[in-house]
Amino acid sequence: MPPVRLLRIHHVGVAVESLSAASPVWEGLLGLVATKDETVASQRVAVRFYPVGESKIECLETLDPQGPVGKFLASRGPGLHHVAFEVDDCAAALAEAAAAGARLVDAVPRAGAAGSLVGFLHPKSTGGALVELVQPARR
Amino acid sequence: MPPVRLLRIHHVGVAVESLSAASPVWEGLLGLVATKDETVASQRVAVRFYPVGESKIECLETLDPQGPVGKFLASRGPGLHHVAFEVDDCAAALAEAAAAGARLVDAVPRAGAAGSLVGFLHPKSTGGALVELVQPARR
Repeated sequence: MPPVRLLRIHHVGVAVESLSAASPVWEGLLGLVATKDETVASQRVAVRFYPVGESKIECLETLDPQGPVGKFLASRGPGLHHVAFEVDDCAAALAEAAAAGARLVDAVPRAGAAGSLVGFLHPKSTGGALVELVQPARR
Repeated sequence: MPPVRLLRIHHVGVAVESLSAASPVWEGLLGLVATKDETVASQRVAVRFYPVGESKIECLETLDPQGPVGKFLASRGPGLHHVAFEVDDCAAALAEAAAAGARLVDAVPRAGAAGSLVGFLHPKSTGGALVELVQPARR
């Protein structure tokens, strides 16, 4: 099986106390401009994207203290949460990552933001960094 | 003073136990190809860059347990460490960020990898995410 082919950094996920509290940082201080907000039900988060170059910053506000971002905030506080890479085919990339030794959080792709298909690799198999693979919706 | 203008994600910094231990993840598992290693004396780290799209993953191995990455590893373990954005003029961007309310780790730019000028914003003023501003060397 070929190795995973990562096309670009799709986004960097940042866990925040709230989207409204994060806005002065990413807009006011760093000059980025948000696109629309979205709820990602499978992760129990509200997200706000800030495009920059070919990538985005994704601010993540948890809608559930027991959700994955809620638990992250409780244990580590706000800050960098994950890095997401664009791939052509999320299902194939997850299979390739697993064949190369990755432990998968998502054995098969699930619905991400903006009609994408996404899957996470477990940080225990990626040296501590939470890695997401994203197949954007067809444009 | 105008707001900071971020051009792209220059790199995402990942604190690792060692560059050699990180290689199976970023090369073997995720299929990236490293460029040359470098020592960044001001940060007491050895770094290895993995280009992906217009950005890079920067693996950071500390050369000093008391250095910034050494302290990060001791308190939080390996994982995502910082996000770095390219700017046209690092000195101007630091001044603009400070005028907008950022607390600066570096009041003036210092030498980064590959002949760049860099400065960090304190995570206490950016909602917990460690942000670096990078002015690449003139090509």
